[in-house]
Amino acid sequence: MTGREAPLSVVRVGLVGLGLIGGSVARTLVAAGVDVVATDPDGATRAVAWDAGVRTVGTAAEVLVERPDVLVLAPPLAALPAVLAELASELPRLVADGGPLPVLTDVGSVKAPVRAVVDAAGLGERYVGAHPMAGTEESGFAASSDDLLPGCPWAVTVAPTTDATHLVRVLALVTGPLRGVARVMDDASHDAAVALVSHVPHALATELLNLTTTAGERRLALGLAAGSFRDGTRVARTDPRRTQAMVAGNAGAVVPALRAAADHLAALADALESGDAAAVTAFFDAADPVRAELASSAGVPGGPTQTVTVALDGDGWRERLTALGEAGAVVARVGTDRLVLTAPALPEA
Amino acid sequence: MTGREAPLSVVRVGLVGLGLIGGSVARTLVAAGVDVVATDPDGATRAVAWDAGVRTVGTAAEVLVERPDVLVLAPPLAALPAVLAELASELPRLVADGGPLPVLTDVGSVKAPVRAVVDAAGLGERYVGAHPMAGTEESGFAASSDDLLPGCPWAVTVAPTTDATHLVRVLALVTGPLRGVARVMDDASHDAAVALVSHVPHALATELLNLTTTAGERRLALGLAAGSFRDGTRVARTDPRRTQAMVAGNAGAVVPALRAAADHLAALADALESGDAAAVTAFFDAADPVRAELASSAGVPGGPTQTVTVALDGDGWRERLTALGEAGAVVARVGTDRLVLTAPALPEA
Repeated sequence: MTGREAPLSVVRVGLVGLGLIGGSVARTLVAAGVDVVATDPDGATRAVAWDAGVRTVGTAAEVLVERPDVLVLAPPLAALPAVLAELASELPRLVADGGPLPVLTDVGSVKAPVRAVVDAAGLGERYVGAHPMAGTEESGFAASSDDLLPGCPWAVTVAPTTDATHLVRVLALVTGPLRGVARVMDDASHDAAVALVSHVPHALATELLNLTTTAGERRLALGLAAGSFRDGTRVARTDPRRTQAMVAGNAGAVVPALRAAADHLAALADALESGDAAAVTAFFDAADPVRAELASSAGVPGGPTQTVTVALDGDGWRERLTALGEAGAVVARVGTDRLVLTAPALPEA
Repeated sequence: MTGREAPLSVVRVGLVGLGLIGGSVARTLVAAGVDVVATDPDGATRAVAWDAGVRTVGTAAEVLVERPDVLVLAPPLAALPAVLAELASELPRLVADGGPLPVLTDVGSVKAPVRAVVDAAGLGERYVGAHPMAGTEESGFAASSDDLLPGCPWAVTVAPTTDATHLVRVLALVTGPLRGVARVMDDASHDAAVALVSHVPHALATELLNLTTTAGERRLALGLAAGSFRDGTRVARTDPRRTQAMVAGNAGAVVPALRAAADHLAALADALESGDAAAVTAFFDAADPVRAELASSAGVPGGPTQTVTVALDGDGWRERLTALGEAGAVVARVGTDRLVLTAPALPEA
């Protein structure tokens, strides 16, 4: 390891929004000894967070003037434009004063729509997208904890304009004090992947409840519902507004997957009705390649791995990182100008 | 309580098939002190069951000549016609010898197709359908246990020809030594209800895996898959042949539900694409009436209950029992000529 691969440290983190994820970021960083300065529009939430050991201030502008190394945006998606406008209006004063400016990142469950809002505020140059795959059925700071995030998968997203020094600073935060397992990808791939493993599953679970609700056999069905139904519909049983916001917020990626699901289920119905056993078998066998992968633990797929170092200079490093991410690579070490990844030892990797 | 409401006892139970469910029936009854005589076509399975305390014999005919009060059929659906043919050929000799004949029941996950096979063998008059909502990801006697069945929901099905004395004997077994929570229903309602809470959920979980398998973002998606995806696809990740057999075995009830799901998901895609927020909201709110019911524990829905006694004589008792089942009633006590049920205290119950 050269000096330039030495772990980066993030000394001060700013945070706007102290809900479930923002609050868990704050608690995890405080527990790790990182200096956190945070705000939330709700004064009572700020007070509770203060009592939990989080240094809070009144506004996003006050967070910014503390010159955090990284500023994490964790408001609801609908509130993001106003937060960004406040930050954008404050930034020229910091530029005039000289000194370093923070990297912006976020924790939202969609990435292309967030980048569009950040770009619209003129802050795209400083932005690296991030999304921890964590959640509970509760929401708000009261549900946050310092054990929700450690060990969980994170997506960290890059665009053709992403600056290498900004990327490594966000990755250092995610894989360091937040103890996440980070994969680098582009926004569109993130949104398509999360549609598949979160948003479409939420829609299908909701549809299972809907079918039961309108059936004449509803009470019999609910009475007979065993573990598989309860597991399969758990995510649809809590706040439908939150589920709707997630699904609608990623409509671009969700819609084609929903249409494909509708087509495949109609085709399965046809095959069952006509007794086309080969087509029915093909439906049930189609996922065989992923059954083994899901049986393995989180992280890279099972099997041999290789270590790959990507230097973050010259051309093509973003494409190389996203190609490695698509092959299953996770970030193992973060240097100031290079990343070390653990990737499956595939011929094409 | 009159003498006629005293709990019935089942002294001897015959069992054909020692797989996961048959084996669990045997172990649970043996643990409860019931005399069990069982068989399985596989000699090694019989030997393992014998070592586990289950008295085994070589054939279904040998089970029958032991004159069990109830004979539980637990073979794979495909093997059922041969088992029934063997029993049907043996039965005349028992009739000639005089004395009581056993009631037939089963544990299969579909009911109308099983009754058709039993009727075809000329044994429909002695048959009462049964189905415990229990399972694991494993199969076979090795996976069976005496704690799989106690407390689980059972469907017990009646037809217009069902004999009252046969029904009470099966209910006494299910709610007595097997410690199940029994609902009485007709075959078609059972098959429709189980399509909703088991077979269609299995098909949708399989489709979630299928979508991920063929996506360009497959490795990213699996890498980001968190608890909700793992929970939602758990039932689709084990033996696809077993899932296929279940779904195809109930095609009559599964097909219309799959078509409805396909239509609803396509309509949701349309609404998301066109920005029809009212239609999207309607989709996510449709299941509100069942969210509260699922939050309550198993058994009857939350809220006030009433006790209903149904005398099993004259006309209309079968219709009364199935109507109570559809309203959410469970069997509370089994008498020789009457049932006591716990039902929701609804105006129409």
